[in-house]
Amino acid sequence: MSAFLPATPAAGGSAAQNDMRTDLERFFNPRAIAIVGASQDLNTISGQPLKFLRSHGYKGALYPVNPRYQEVAGVRCHASLAELPEVPDLALILVNAARVADMLRQCGAKGVPYVIIFSSGFSEVGGGGVNMQQELVSIAREFNIGVIGPNCQGMINVADSVFAGFGSVFNADYEPGVVSMVSQSGGFGFSVMNLSSKDGGLAFRQMVTTGNEIGVSTLDFVEYFIRDPQTEIIAGYIEGLKDARRLVEVGNKALAAGKPVLMWKVGNTEQGQRAAVSHTANLGGAMALYQAAFRQAGILQVEDIQDLIDYGRAFRCGRLPRGNRLAIITISGGAGILMTDECIGRGMQLAQFAPETLARLREFVPSFGSLLNPVDVTAAIFNDLSLINRTLQTIIDDPNVDCVAMINASLQGEIAARIAAEIVAVATKTDKPVLLAWSARDVVAPEAYGMLDQARIPHYKSPVRCGRALAALSWCAEARRRFEAQRAEVALRLSRPVAREALAGKTADVSEHAAKRILAEYGISVTREGLATTKEQALEAAKRIGYPVALKVQSPDISHKTEAKAVRLGIAADAELAAAYDEVLRNAIAHKPDARIEGVLVQETVQGGIEAILGVTNDPLFGPAVMFGLGGIFAEVLKDVAFRLAPVTPSVAREMIAEIKGYPLLAGARGKAPADIDALADAIVRLSALAVDLEAELAELDVNPLFVMDKGKGVKAADALIRPRSNAGKPPMNADERR
Amino acid sequence: MSAFLPATPAAGGSAAQNDMRTDLERFFNPRAIAIVGASQDLNTISGQPLKFLRSHGYKGALYPVNPRYQEVAGVRCHASLAELPEVPDLALILVNAARVADMLRQCGAKGVPYVIIFSSGFSEVGGGGVNMQQELVSIAREFNIGVIGPNCQGMINVADSVFAGFGSVFNADYEPGVVSMVSQSGGFGFSVMNLSSKDGGLAFRQMVTTGNEIGVSTLDFVEYFIRDPQTEIIAGYIEGLKDARRLVEVGNKALAAGKPVLMWKVGNTEQGQRAAVSHTANLGGAMALYQAAFRQAGILQVEDIQDLIDYGRAFRCGRLPRGNRLAIITISGGAGILMTDECIGRGMQLAQFAPETLARLREFVPSFGSLLNPVDVTAAIFNDLSLINRTLQTIIDDPNVDCVAMINASLQGEIAARIAAEIVAVATKTDKPVLLAWSARDVVAPEAYGMLDQARIPHYKSPVRCGRALAALSWCAEARRRFEAQRAEVALRLSRPVAREALAGKTADVSEHAAKRILAEYGISVTREGLATTKEQALEAAKRIGYPVALKVQSPDISHKTEAKAVRLGIAADAELAAAYDEVLRNAIAHKPDARIEGVLVQETVQGGIEAILGVTNDPLFGPAVMFGLGGIFAEVLKDVAFRLAPVTPSVAREMIAEIKGYPLLAGARGKAPADIDALADAIVRLSALAVDLEAELAELDVNPLFVMDKGKGVKAADALIRPRSNAGKPPMNADERR
Repeated sequence: MSAFLPATPAAGGSAAQNDMRTDLERFFNPRAIAIVGASQDLNTISGQPLKFLRSHGYKGALYPVNPRYQEVAGVRCHASLAELPEVPDLALILVNAARVADMLRQCGAKGVPYVIIFSSGFSEVGGGGVNMQQELVSIAREFNIGVIGPNCQGMINVADSVFAGFGSVFNADYEPGVVSMVSQSGGFGFSVMNLSSKDGGLAFRQMVTTGNEIGVSTLDFVEYFIRDPQTEIIAGYIEGLKDARRLVEVGNKALAAGKPVLMWKVGNTEQGQRAAVSHTANLGGAMALYQAAFRQAGILQVEDIQDLIDYGRAFRCGRLPRGNRLAIITISGGAGILMTDECIGRGMQLAQFAPETLARLREFVPSFGSLLNPVDVTAAIFNDLSLINRTLQTIIDDPNVDCVAMINASLQGEIAARIAAEIVAVATKTDKPVLLAWSARDVVAPEAYGMLDQARIPHYKSPVRCGRALAALSWCAEARRRFEAQRAEVALRLSRPVAREALAGKTADVSEHAAKRILAEYGISVTREGLATTKEQALEAAKRIGYPVALKVQSPDISHKTEAKAVRLGIAADAELAAAYDEVLRNAIAHKPDARIEGVLVQETVQGGIEAILGVTNDPLFGPAVMFGLGGIFAEVLKDVAFRLAPVTPSVAREMIAEIKGYPLLAGARGKAPADIDALADAIVRLSALAVDLEAELAELDVNPLFVMDKGKGVKAADALIRPRSNAGKPPMNADERR
Repeated sequence: MSAFLPATPAAGGSAAQNDMRTDLERFFNPRAIAIVGASQDLNTISGQPLKFLRSHGYKGALYPVNPRYQEVAGVRCHASLAELPEVPDLALILVNAARVADMLRQCGAKGVPYVIIFSSGFSEVGGGGVNMQQELVSIAREFNIGVIGPNCQGMINVADSVFAGFGSVFNADYEPGVVSMVSQSGGFGFSVMNLSSKDGGLAFRQMVTTGNEIGVSTLDFVEYFIRDPQTEIIAGYIEGLKDARRLVEVGNKALAAGKPVLMWKVGNTEQGQRAAVSHTANLGGAMALYQAAFRQAGILQVEDIQDLIDYGRAFRCGRLPRGNRLAIITISGGAGILMTDECIGRGMQLAQFAPETLARLREFVPSFGSLLNPVDVTAAIFNDLSLINRTLQTIIDDPNVDCVAMINASLQGEIAARIAAEIVAVATKTDKPVLLAWSARDVVAPEAYGMLDQARIPHYKSPVRCGRALAALSWCAEARRRFEAQRAEVALRLSRPVAREALAGKTADVSEHAAKRILAEYGISVTREGLATTKEQALEAAKRIGYPVALKVQSPDISHKTEAKAVRLGIAADAELAAAYDEVLRNAIAHKPDARIEGVLVQETVQGGIEAILGVTNDPLFGPAVMFGLGGIFAEVLKDVAFRLAPVTPSVAREMIAEIKGYPLLAGARGKAPADIDALADAIVRLSALAVDLEAELAELDVNPLFVMDKGKGVKAADALIRPRSNAGKPPMNADERR
């Protein structure tokens, strides 16, 4: 029931700046709780928290606060927070929106460190609600309160029996587990916890909902879960993050701590999430940046409750594969194909068995089973259960195998238990992940499943789900390897005061020539060119550059150069240039009589090369992000581009290049020579350094086209546009405007 | 446990040609069953069928056949089929592979119409197994037996208590339902049935497994299910179809009958499924053709058991939306976003409410609920349950709404039942589909779920699953509308004996000029050109065509024209042409001294236009299929192409054009004029007519490039290659070879 509205940086403000409020130990395990606005009707929203805290056996002190009552459900009720005999670690505010600010101020005066505001009626309803929310932000800041909410449904700490919230899922008891989750949606978040814990076999340790999230943020909770020694798996459900630029840093902490983070990001198709500005910004809708950040942070995306359960159960095995090479053992050929499809389609490979493995398998796998991978052991295992043990052991021992999936169809009853025992015996002696697809219903194979659960061997009803879970493990293992490999890499940092000064205070777009001089400051190659203010200068420049050249009138007032006929391409000689010089100037003046003319750009004609596009978007949530794609239709029609948050290291730049669908074109498809990918990666790294250095001044930057020449021949920026920050509100310029 | 190996047309042969064997009524409901190779050990594979037939109360006569026994489990056992007192409608063969042929012959001699061969050890093991399977095919044909299998797990007809097979899922009792399914995998197919019926709430009517499928095929069963009045929903699990070209016809029958067909096709990532031949064939791997056929046939693809269950439960509501406009009512904002993402991402739209709807909603939706779609009614419904009824009714009555999804979070217990009653009251009075996302566990909302099931109102634990199911309904509704709109369309048929004769008996690839003359026969525009055998003819041709022209040496022995330097482009005048004529011929001879030279092609230079590629692949399984894509990297690097099985009608040709990602380029992206899509669609239709007319002669055809000119200016084929059938074994030519 949350309604996330991105706040301005002033209104938001992460609690991360404050030490006390992000050490959330006392939030999850408070010694005393005040319930402000507690109702005597324990079935109402404001009555439920007290009911559930008591029914689940909360061990601390409970202080209902309500001037109308002497007691609530047998517990002494105080008229105000000031009267409480001690300072509670946590206060729950359950009053009407209009009265929340007053209560929060009372909490502050009392010195309460954490407050959950359940009440609705703030920014999610717009209008006056936005102002009321702003007031809460001020109060929280004034008194240094860690606020959770408003418009949320509270928290459950299963392990310590703290059920501080409302809703039907609070009725149930839960086994404590190792998953800690933060959700911006209250109703939905608790549904996930309930289904996961009860029917999914994935028990939770803690669950907190954050609603409008004016104080302690999703990422603050993720950071706490990383530190919490009892949390093994971290999950999040988000509609949007105000402190999104912390994603990579937080993800890296989780990678370093070895804790998987599963994130469910919704709102992917919402139209008009943000106004489209430049080309680069246009392609980098919020979702593109979230996905880039998740990838950079090693955060695994999930798309349904079942994903979260399946992947979470896979991580419970506590192992990651060393590589992506999978072996499949199956008694059903069909299911083996299904699993292969899922895993190969998600970046894994079928392991090629070593010759010794094949030789050993041949000794005991029956003749009409297949010895290829997937290994089809057929129903013959019914006759000799030791086959399972021997096959599994042989395949696990193969050095070419990183993980094993076994498919047991619908085996059930007593034979199922015996098979499970064989599997447990082998799988507990290896550190390679072993996952099972086993379609028997719970009620017909309870003993088998019990043994597997006990041994933390993940099992799934469907080979499809098993394959996806295995691929999730493999993805996280790959993310961790990438993290280890890249953590030593230092991102290029460049400081160019000249460039910063050139942009500072600018209100107009920076036109081509000046924009390219800024690129050149950061070491990005640009076309040879010269700005001429006389015909003689133009002729001289052309001589220096070499024909053929292009002429382009430079004016901050003419954005549609081509439309204004202020551009001439392919000028081959002096006479032609002299005529063209007059012509383009005449056209420019005719197009816009009062245009300020900076001069006429004389520019080399780039021969050959592949057109690429680079860009920077300085996102209000994510900060500077770098984009790469191939030019023209690739970027504009196919949206075939890669984003990363800056700073970008060389290996990440290479990932971006290899990631786009058009990559084969750069690598040398269609019999063409391979392009200079080294130089392209270097240009991306330098653009990233520019983006970081100019963060305060730059709104958007497009390099379009950047010509990527043959291997060894470098790259060359042929056109560029910079929109300064102070000009960020202007409507977009499209690529054609700038020619 | 099946292993599908595509058979040659000779070895396969669909049962569809035979009336008796495809009227499968007596197969599913046999009056008497012989069990050949019945074992006295009822736990073995050959003992289980008798056990299960009896334990589930089969009402017909049972005849175990085994010379070793007098009786099996108290039932009289006969020494041979010949001795049976009557002709059984069905025989089950459970003997070793080596003895199956003999038993099948005995079935034939007795006149048994249907035989299930359970035994393994045939084509799935290769080698001698393939020959043994071939023998079974011959016997089945000789005696006109409808064979199911071999290498399968039998059949269950739940409705009539016929459990003719083996495996652990046969232990359970099932409620009869309305889903009939055919699966090529035995173990996996029965797992699906078991999980769907028992835990998924989707009960089955019939389930049959077909294994190696030498006789009655998957599509034969689908056709039977279409005729079977008790079957409402048809499902299939396939690894491959031998009679794949029947897919569209069968799918159309299902559309006409109003029965959804859900198909799970696996084996999508298998490498080397078939040797890559031409460019077109290369792009049209088996999966591309399956997907084209599924789309043409209105067959819905599923990818997991849960899909099948979810979509099946959606279809049980017995309604399809009239359009794709969805209204969402939710008490959880987060879940509403999730559902929106799923539905919009799958081609649905959020309905725009009529003004009267908004006015009416404003009367009773609480102030902090949202009146946009999704309509957030918030937890205020707890206070006044009539809100549900009124909101739902108002939205259903809106003429802009085609279907409604309602999200109830985890509501449970007594309030859940009352809410369900309100929903049932409204939803049963409309013919618009109403689906629910309701996350309460079964045990806490049994009464509510019971009422919904009773009223056939589909409900799902996750809003994601609910959204996908709704999108599946919408997809099928759209397929049915398309079918209705297109069924009156007649595909263009052309008969060109000249073209057939030109290809008949050809062993070499047909070179450019001749290939284009064949295209022209079918009314596809080609470049103006002339084949010259003297310089004078070349000059004359150039004069007629107009400069600039291209020269290309035509020889069946030089496939790499460009590599051989036997091509010159952009020739501007007579003198240049005269020199170039000698030069290309000289180069051709130098490249291959004994090359047979057909002449030098003088060809117009096409100015402007967008490069497209058209193709035909004459697939052994699917027959002729037509491909369309944009040229160059679009097809080769991005694989951005559309396939359809021939014949292709004009509206289907338009679908193909609009389907590719590069479509905006044709529609006029980047400020360009729109291309001549009418002419392009006409060329596709004509190519389809060619493909059908030349089916016997043609293996593959590429038109690359086909220039699509500006709107009204037509299309022009600039190069083409035809590979005749008799030459289909030759290694592929790539696009560059033909320049």
